[in-house]
Amino acid sequence: MPGNSFGTIFRITTWGESHGPAVGVVLDGCPAGLEISVEDIQFELDRRRPGQSKITTQRKEPDTVEILSGIFEGKTLGTPISLMVRNTDAISKSYEDIKDTYRPGHADFTYDAKYGFRDHRGGGRSSNRETVGRVAAAAIAKKILNLNGIHTYGYVKQVGDVVADNIDLDEIEKNIVRCPDSNKVQEMIELIEAVRKEGDSIGGVVEVVSTGLQAGLGTPVFHKVDAELAQGLMSLGGIRGFEVGLGFEATTMKGSQANDVMYTKDSGELRFKTNNAGGLLGGITNGEDLVVRIAIKPTSSISQVQHTVDKSGNPKELRVKGRHDPCLCPRAVPIAEAMVNLVLVDQLLLSRTTRI
Amino acid sequence: MPGNSFGTIFRITTWGESHGPAVGVVLDGCPAGLEISVEDIQFELDRRRPGQSKITTQRKEPDTVEILSGIFEGKTLGTPISLMVRNTDAISKSYEDIKDTYRPGHADFTYDAKYGFRDHRGGGRSSNRETVGRVAAAAIAKKILNLNGIHTYGYVKQVGDVVADNIDLDEIEKNIVRCPDSNKVQEMIELIEAVRKEGDSIGGVVEVVSTGLQAGLGTPVFHKVDAELAQGLMSLGGIRGFEVGLGFEATTMKGSQANDVMYTKDSGELRFKTNNAGGLLGGITNGEDLVVRIAIKPTSSISQVQHTVDKSGNPKELRVKGRHDPCLCPRAVPIAEAMVNLVLVDQLLLSRTTRI
Amino acid sequence: MPGNSFGTIFRITTWGESHGPAVGVVLDGCPAGLEISVEDIQFELDRRRPGQSKITTQRKEPDTVEILSGIFEGKTLGTPISLMVRNTDAISKSYEDIKDTYRPGHADFTYDAKYGFRDHRGGGRSSNRETVGRVAAAAIAKKILNLNGIHTYGYVKQVGDVVADNIDLDEIEKNIVRCPDSNKVQEMIELIEAVRKEGDSIGGVVEVVSTGLQAGLGTPVFHKVDAELAQGLMSLGGIRGFEVGLGFEATTMKGSQANDVMYTKDSGELRFKTNNAGGLLGGITNGEDLVVRIAIKPTSSISQVQHTVDKSGNPKELRVKGRHDPCLCPRAVPIAEAMVNLVLVDQLLLSRTTRI
Amino acid sequence: MPGNSFGTIFRITTWGESHGPAVGVVLDGCPAGLEISVEDIQFELDRRRPGQSKITTQRKEPDTVEILSGIFEGKTLGTPISLMVRNTDAISKSYEDIKDTYRPGHADFTYDAKYGFRDHRGGGRSSNRETVGRVAAAAIAKKILNLNGIHTYGYVKQVGDVVADNIDLDEIEKNIVRCPDSNKVQEMIELIEAVRKEGDSIGGVVEVVSTGLQAGLGTPVFHKVDAELAQGLMSLGGIRGFEVGLGFEATTMKGSQANDVMYTKDSGELRFKTNNAGGLLGGITNGEDLVVRIAIKPTSSISQVQHTVDKSGNPKELRVKGRHDPCLCPRAVPIAEAMVNLVLVDQLLLSRTTRI
Repeated sequence: MPGNSFGTIFRITTWGESHGPAVGVVLDGCPAGLEISVEDIQFELDRRRPGQSKITTQRKEPDTVEILSGIFEGKTLGTPISLMVRNTDAISKSYEDIKDTYRPGHADFTYDAKYGFRDHRGGGRSSNRETVGRVAAAAIAKKILNLNGIHTYGYVKQVGDVVADNIDLDEIEKNIVRCPDSNKVQEMIELIEAVRKEGDSIGGVVEVVSTGLQAGLGTPVFHKVDAELAQGLMSLGGIRGFEVGLGFEATTMKGSQANDVMYTKDSGELRFKTNNAGGLLGGITNGEDLVVRIAIKPTSSISQVQHTVDKSGNPKELRVKGRHDPCLCPRAVPIAEAMVNLVLVDQLLLSRTTRI
Repeated sequence: MPGNSFGTIFRITTWGESHGPAVGVVLDGCPAGLEISVEDIQFELDRRRPGQSKITTQRKEPDTVEILSGIFEGKTLGTPISLMVRNTDAISKSYEDIKDTYRPGHADFTYDAKYGFRDHRGGGRSSNRETVGRVAAAAIAKKILNLNGIHTYGYVKQVGDVVADNIDLDEIEKNIVRCPDSNKVQEMIELIEAVRKEGDSIGGVVEVVSTGLQAGLGTPVFHKVDAELAQGLMSLGGIRGFEVGLGFEATTMKGSQANDVMYTKDSGELRFKTNNAGGLLGGITNGEDLVVRIAIKPTSSISQVQHTVDKSGNPKELRVKGRHDPCLCPRAVPIAEAMVNLVLVDQLLLSRTTRI
Repeated sequence: MPGNSFGTIFRITTWGESHGPAVGVVLDGCPAGLEISVEDIQFELDRRRPGQSKITTQRKEPDTVEILSGIFEGKTLGTPISLMVRNTDAISKSYEDIKDTYRPGHADFTYDAKYGFRDHRGGGRSSNRETVGRVAAAAIAKKILNLNGIHTYGYVKQVGDVVADNIDLDEIEKNIVRCPDSNKVQEMIELIEAVRKEGDSIGGVVEVVSTGLQAGLGTPVFHKVDAELAQGLMSLGGIRGFEVGLGFEATTMKGSQANDVMYTKDSGELRFKTNNAGGLLGGITNGEDLVVRIAIKPTSSISQVQHTVDKSGNPKELRVKGRHDPCLCPRAVPIAEAMVNLVLVDQLLLSRTTRI
Repeated sequence: MPGNSFGTIFRITTWGESHGPAVGVVLDGCPAGLEISVEDIQFELDRRRPGQSKITTQRKEPDTVEILSGIFEGKTLGTPISLMVRNTDAISKSYEDIKDTYRPGHADFTYDAKYGFRDHRGGGRSSNRETVGRVAAAAIAKKILNLNGIHTYGYVKQVGDVVADNIDLDEIEKNIVRCPDSNKVQEMIELIEAVRKEGDSIGGVVEVVSTGLQAGLGTPVFHKVDAELAQGLMSLGGIRGFEVGLGFEATTMKGSQANDVMYTKDSGELRFKTNNAGGLLGGITNGEDLVVRIAIKPTSSISQVQHTVDKSGNPKELRVKGRHDPCLCPRAVPIAEAMVNLVLVDQLLLSRTTRI
């Protein structure tokens, strides 16, 4: 299958270049009869939109979504849902002088190597702008999950070496860095501002948690929940690692420590005393919260002078102009949530076919 | 699609339960005309086979592969290649008394939750034995990659907190722990032996490197090489994390440090001075070595007494008998290599359709 | 996979309801570097457009295509190509009074049965208008095929019981019924006009021929060329049968008559003396012309009074207003060609992965 | 996707060459908890088995199926079901002298053209023997359908120009030609015997009917029931045409004749007075019987002398030895039923995901 589709039953196909006419998504396989409004979708797009605060890129796009098909009189038809966002604030001209220069950390060189040719403006297809389609479709996934009692929350767990220890979900959307620990908000913001002033950028970690999951979701062996989440999240730009539960911390532990012990609740429900596994056993949900993390590299576009080459191999000095996030983490939160929701809704629908 | 297939062009479907009649794989989409022998496949199966040394499980299966279709007069026909390994040493009886008990860290509970029913013997489908099919098919992938100058090597990078610093590829297969650093071999083996004597187990890290890759492999946006590798590797049992290049280390770095600088070789070839990205930009190979790592949890099956519950919720004390690897890492090496090779050969074939 | 995608490498996903905001297609997997213009696509859309003559529906839609992504500076990028056509002449009001009435021969009842709900205006998703996306994407397929010396021609072989005997390709686009036999044009037109005056409609047969095909295209066993063509063509509205080569005529023949005899041309090329098989053996092209036919039922919408029921089961008398083709065949020609081209280009790209 | 898989949820992958070690199938996505025995599967294989009567090939294979995975204690596990049949009566030697000769009507030439190489023994992969896997998997599909009140019957509708008019389902399995019309049985058998004596073969038509289908099955637009059936049935060897409902007969009809009129039964159920559409509207079941037909060409292998060429282009006289069915129809009945059942069970499972 070509590369721009994701999901088995609830299947998205995203399209669009950063500075082309528009970006969008076709969602096929959404069940019929779901109440959904353009506002439901716009709400999530607004959360990922650039220009929201002093620590995100100042590119100002209203990112207004248009529903082109699949929704009629406020309800999904069961037919493909086509969603489009026009690109309006694309200043293509600022890219003209670096047309043939390979920006460090970007996919300019590899797109040329693969396709022999590329839309150089703002990264073209390799731009983070591609995620508009994912987030728009995931707004619909979210609605279905919520109806099933499943809720997904993402937050910035770490910026550089500043780590959020206390997770307070109510805190997340109150601060511009989407940090769940009120004691670390200021520190994170200051670090981001400091690197921006240096013309530099900084990496970090986003954690996503889903609650309310019944035990039994996931499709062994290649479509285990963690395998699908890893694919979905690693397919985002700038991600260098993925963890579930204890993640790499488990590598230094013993089995007697890492195994989660089961017990029976008074209600008779079987549960786990700890959640080292992050909510999955054998790639199938076990009824505990799903917990995943992604490692986000520092933004490649920085305003410091960098050395590189152009298409013909000539050395170049490059100072990336444009407007870029000094830290990708805050805006990565709604995008990471989107990917988790897309995986979960697909597994939820698939689970209807599991038993005779 | 159901869960047991992987790959787009070079596509495998694995099947089989740990203690059922057999395990196997059907490989569809392998190009015609490849010379391959049963020995080529058996060689890789022997590398993953249990019972190879004192630090692996003593389960003794010859794991003899039978070619059932797709290969004629020593060459692939272009038709599906069906490979089967009979299960011969499956001592099912030892599982009878824990038939209804949920083993900590295993998928017993979640398989019941999903399917309402399971083959309890040795984990059934959730057993690591499922990887026999992956390794067998990947032996064919490896042959194609080698013909194209691409070579993949895996090794144990870390056991518990013992880390291999010096990577000497020649060292790997010389020691039973598959450690590439001769200075750390003894330390790793001692640690594994020590936890085994405690009736416990230990985690670790396996790193896989592929060399000889041309720039331009990978299919954005959802089938980027790192996304596919993440899916493939996280779909193995007992994996808790995935990294490419610097991985989580990148989260504390600045863009000016993390970006790999390009330069022009005397030969005119465009290359990178560092390889922080692990060989990928925008999910497409950039001509540098591909470098990935997986976090392996400590083996769930340990001989210490553990507390758990049975199917009806009754508390149980469990001492897992059977024979289990105290550390999954050494045997995970050929399996991880297999997954990397399966992803790469698929992208290699897909790349033939990229340009007009 | 959900139902709105077709193709393996060259893969289309169509979307849109007849009277929704727009209809369109996303084409993923088109090779990079193909020169294509908006005119190339518009040309094919104009061929399928309604209102072209007195024997087609008078619905007047300019059907202007907009390229939203995937094409840059006149060439395909290798990224998804998103094409959209706004619905402009959709007179939704005329459907208001039959909102709950099940039109005979239409999918109104079955869409309600499946989805519990539908867009009743003009058939919604089940409208022939869905084929706009297919035709637009196939214009790109056609360009690739032409570059490879492959050309596809469709024509109306039969209207009611009037059969075209003499096939003159130059004649096809010269007459409004797209009949290749100048001796039958007038007869076909008169038959169509006659049934229209009766407030009725008539069926027919469209034949499609592809020339210039090399031997060796097709992917056994489920993606044989004839299997894929059958799926693609039967997925159009109003099709009741599919034939390749001799089709049903072969059922009364003997093997000694039906087998095509091979011979060696002076050039050394192996060819067939007859083409009873229609260009395929074992679902793979044999170097002869590909010849397929589809049986097209009479248009369901007729202006005669018909008896039916509404959603609640009440009997209704229905006289379909709107504007409808009295015979689907002439406009089915470019659509049938489109499906053939979509199948062939996919197989052409897949054939690059067949051999080592 | 490579060519050897079929189905979305209930997905089969067949493998095996006619004279290789075995043929088989992996069925992925079968729901867990279905009671199934090896006898259920063997029963259907016995129905397709050669050597059943004087009018079928005398190749004698017991075709004993072995269940290799996915079934435990008599019930499906929800994991892949691997089924294998060893090839035992394969007389490969009889093919040695025609190793390089292209048999008329067979895929010998096209397999060479595609793959550059083939297993010449008995047609290798292009042999009808491939359908063993389809029939074995479909036995499981049939069981699920029966549990849901859906029953599928196939029969020989026509041999040469002898047509069965009276359809008596009880008659079908009582005669060796699987004709449902007791008045035509003898005539069909005599025709087949006559052509066999001439060293020739004859074509025919198989019709398949499914009863008990609820309205609402089918996945527009590319996975309509008729589109899937057409793909599945045309992917069988020797099929030249496909029809649903009236089929090609509809091409000479008027809309006022062809449209099926709806009415309300006393029970309140909405039904159709006629079934010209063959049980589908817009590719979705409408509650009436599903009726499809396939055109089967005369067997290509005949014992008369035929002219052809070899691989090097030299003219050859060929008298196909081996043992072949003089008419494919009787044995095509269980195979055609199998394909219909595979399509229907897939749509039945998919329909569980249609509504919110």
